[in-house]
Amino acid sequence: MGDVARAMPQDSVIVQESSPTAQPGDLALLIGRDRKSVLLRLEPGAELHTHHGTLSHDDLIETSWGSYVPTRMGRPMLLLRPSTDDIVRQLTRTTQIVYPKDAGYILMKMSIAPGCCVVEAGTGSGALTLVLAQAVGPTGHVHSYEIRPDVRNLARKNLAGLGLSDRATLKLRDISEGFDEHGADALFLDLPNPWDFVEQAHAALASGAFFGCILPTANQVIEMLGALGGSGFGVIEVEELFVRPYKATAARLRPMDRMVAHTGYLVFARTLA
Amino acid sequence: MGDVARAMPQDSVIVQESSPTAQPGDLALLIGRDRKSVLLRLEPGAELHTHHGTLSHDDLIETSWGSYVPTRMGRPMLLLRPSTDDIVRQLTRTTQIVYPKDAGYILMKMSIAPGCCVVEAGTGSGALTLVLAQAVGPTGHVHSYEIRPDVRNLARKNLAGLGLSDRATLKLRDISEGFDEHGADALFLDLPNPWDFVEQAHAALASGAFFGCILPTANQVIEMLGALGGSGFGVIEVEELFVRPYKATAARLRPMDRMVAHTGYLVFARTLA
Amino acid sequence: MGDVARAMPQDSVIVQESSPTAQPGDLALLIGRDRKSVLLRLEPGAELHTHHGTLSHDDLIETSWGSYVPTRMGRPMLLLRPSTDDIVRQLTRTTQIVYPKDAGYILMKMSIAPGCCVVEAGTGSGALTLVLAQAVGPTGHVHSYEIRPDVRNLARKNLAGLGLSDRATLKLRDISEGFDEHGADALFLDLPNPWDFVEQAHAALASGAFFGCILPTANQVIEMLGALGGSGFGVIEVEELFVRPYKATAARLRPMDRMVAHTGYLVFARTLA
Amino acid sequence: MGDVARAMPQDSVIVQESSPTAQPGDLALLIGRDRKSVLLRLEPGAELHTHHGTLSHDDLIETSWGSYVPTRMGRPMLLLRPSTDDIVRQLTRTTQIVYPKDAGYILMKMSIAPGCCVVEAGTGSGALTLVLAQAVGPTGHVHSYEIRPDVRNLARKNLAGLGLSDRATLKLRDISEGFDEHGADALFLDLPNPWDFVEQAHAALASGAFFGCILPTANQVIEMLGALGGSGFGVIEVEELFVRPYKATAARLRPMDRMVAHTGYLVFARTLA
Repeated sequence: MGDVARAMPQDSVIVQESSPTAQPGDLALLIGRDRKSVLLRLEPGAELHTHHGTLSHDDLIETSWGSYVPTRMGRPMLLLRPSTDDIVRQLTRTTQIVYPKDAGYILMKMSIAPGCCVVEAGTGSGALTLVLAQAVGPTGHVHSYEIRPDVRNLARKNLAGLGLSDRATLKLRDISEGFDEHGADALFLDLPNPWDFVEQAHAALASGAFFGCILPTANQVIEMLGALGGSGFGVIEVEELFVRPYKATAARLRPMDRMVAHTGYLVFARTLA
Repeated sequence: MGDVARAMPQDSVIVQESSPTAQPGDLALLIGRDRKSVLLRLEPGAELHTHHGTLSHDDLIETSWGSYVPTRMGRPMLLLRPSTDDIVRQLTRTTQIVYPKDAGYILMKMSIAPGCCVVEAGTGSGALTLVLAQAVGPTGHVHSYEIRPDVRNLARKNLAGLGLSDRATLKLRDISEGFDEHGADALFLDLPNPWDFVEQAHAALASGAFFGCILPTANQVIEMLGALGGSGFGVIEVEELFVRPYKATAARLRPMDRMVAHTGYLVFARTLA
Repeated sequence: MGDVARAMPQDSVIVQESSPTAQPGDLALLIGRDRKSVLLRLEPGAELHTHHGTLSHDDLIETSWGSYVPTRMGRPMLLLRPSTDDIVRQLTRTTQIVYPKDAGYILMKMSIAPGCCVVEAGTGSGALTLVLAQAVGPTGHVHSYEIRPDVRNLARKNLAGLGLSDRATLKLRDISEGFDEHGADALFLDLPNPWDFVEQAHAALASGAFFGCILPTANQVIEMLGALGGSGFGVIEVEELFVRPYKATAARLRPMDRMVAHTGYLVFARTLA
Repeated sequence: MGDVARAMPQDSVIVQESSPTAQPGDLALLIGRDRKSVLLRLEPGAELHTHHGTLSHDDLIETSWGSYVPTRMGRPMLLLRPSTDDIVRQLTRTTQIVYPKDAGYILMKMSIAPGCCVVEAGTGSGALTLVLAQAVGPTGHVHSYEIRPDVRNLARKNLAGLGLSDRATLKLRDISEGFDEHGADALFLDLPNPWDFVEQAHAALASGAFFGCILPTANQVIEMLGALGGSGFGVIEVEELFVRPYKATAARLRPMDRMVAHTGYLVFARTLA
């Protein structure tokens, strides 16, 4: 690697602001040789127990990101900052979650970017909430509704653990009463009967704004299309996404034997004036 | 729709900061009945010519987003703010672009969020550049390299048209000389021979940071996996994404007859310390 | 190629019974350099006009299969026996057809093999009829029902052109009156409302026999599942097939840019005693 | 069901020749409530032990196909003739097999029908061999080569168990020495290095005949395309097939959560004169 790195040009710019080493309070991902991974928040003095052996958090703190750290059984664990994808996959959950493949596409289709005001229901375990909160940045906000107290509490804990609490307001509320917000940029429903809340969603959104929902069954999509058809929404789209993983071996490149075949149908629409 | 909107609760919050009507300088999308759409920047006095007839920009300015505006031929055109997906699809291009389905997933896999420093090569028409620039927000930055002056100029024009010029620095440079940046959070290569720049990429990235590239052929993926294997990268993943669109008709829900079957293979990796 | 062919072992067996050259009356496929192909029945004295130029059938007769024959414009056309796949794709049609990918799978799922008695409705252009007729061989039979005289006539012409007329009986009949057959091995419905004929299908089939249908919309599948649920059928399965074609270039192996995304949902079931 | 069945028309035809009840020596499939199934050959006096309980073959013999027969634990098992798909899936195997989705498509692309002479190597567990043997009927033949004695013996046992022994000749032979056959209609290779046998394959096939192979990795496809390119083959095609299964529930139609994502790439070609 050395030549290029040594020959750092005169006008080279050190762009990194975050620490090159893991610090107390950082969220860390440890990956074993078997590709299994663990997500943890670094705390001085704490211990991590994995099936590859035990590790002291103190052995990780002040270690460079991207290093292999051995467990007490001598197994190397790779220390990394988790990606959004890693975080969503590792999230403690009691509900079906919105997967990263779908969440990333939702950002594109619903133009969710720094500064946006987004409304969401139900919160569930907070997987989409965290992606939205991350994407809207400190100048945007997510207003997320959930009707089950235990689920809301889990989402709150998940978001707090990620340091995103102040970007998302979690409300324990039945949305049949309507949303508090009006003029929102985007609104996403991840609940079994979104057709019952089409009016409430329209009222919460700015004119021309982005509506989306995710539904596991074709029957639900059919019902939702019926509800959207007569309700002040246009540009209705239904799409599915597939991610096909490959075995990443140069000598034997091939798709994995099995893949996730379905998470949900995505329905998108725009509010009409 | 009325009941809910009228029954606006006492604690209702008007979250929208942007104007509910189209304003001079706004980027607008006009969609005809045939679902064909046009992207335009609103300029007082300008005219738009479509196969549905002519429209004066002045008829659009001060009109509510989400309204139907008739052309002089009497055909209704729906006035909307474009989504990121719309903008990418409508982008003036002379090169193959990174599609929104892939771009959204790249954000998730490479943790690109407000405040990130991202390096990219080649810029191409700027499709991925604009998605990255939008995602990193005003506190992040995109450093994008391109070797062909005409392509760089097109990307510059595209980004300027979207008001994203100050978030992305476009450099006309051969990256075999290396990148100016060091300690970057993420680096993405969209060029035919990324294996030739693996060292340069490693030198530009922070330890443990995110590397990605997109490649159209299996041969290229095989060559890239070979190059990554011996070069200070780990957690190598190869994936493909498919988007399957449906005919959004409640009475006859079915997939579209044809779909895009391939854009490119995505390769992701992490830098090792 | 020569060494192996020359070194033909003593116990070598010439297995081919059909002529190594094209004969009058043979069905032939001609493929141009652009991969476009034409299906024709060879007739002494006849001429074929293609966008690559004109060819006399006499130039093809007595020519080896697998040879390139030039048109009068000097363009080489490859002379081949058509595959079942080629024949189905080239079939004159006025209706949507069952594609080879689905037809081949139907053979596997419904155990259609030499000697089988198969019932089918509607005949349509005869695409599935010809695959079934070919598969059941001279000792089996296909009984195919169609309600539209013009469509039946086209299918009759298509099957006659393939020399399969005596393996398939085409009936012009409304199947709401029931099928003539009883104890059939397999029955396939390719019509818009198969749920209206579930009783008739059950009556035509042997106990434990194979039922199948193909339906373009999810709504139809839902309605059909409802009808099958209470009607003496079991082991109900719903599946879709995709074929993804690649650009077959050794140096640049990659999927084609676009593909057929949907032909129909396949529904299979077994009759209960 | 009754009305139609009772109203059997005067010209009704009883087409079934096989027995409506299970007979000694028949191949039978038993399916439990959990959809798990067992394949067995009925023998008077024999017993079947399943996790749903024990069943005497004598309780199945003379029972109507399509009946539910209780085990001694009182669990109902559905008695059916197995489909080709069932047989392939249940086949005793020591090797990767060609799946029914691919086998059915191979029949279509390679025009395998009653009367055909087909050559195959390697035999493997005999999954494709049995599909080919069934499809060519009593007037066709399959010549199948295998180099490993134990594998050949398993295939022999599998084919004998299906009563297909006289339609397929299994040869224990290294095909680098060439095939015995010349002028074959179709030849299929399911082995890791088909590029080493391109000349042998060409020598065994009639001019213009059908060649096919299945390969798990992109690297192998690339190598094979290189070999076919200069070797007397044309009309080269590479394709993959996917089967996507659904949960067959009328009220909640949706794809299964997971699916088989890859079995192999199919390569097809035609021999040139």
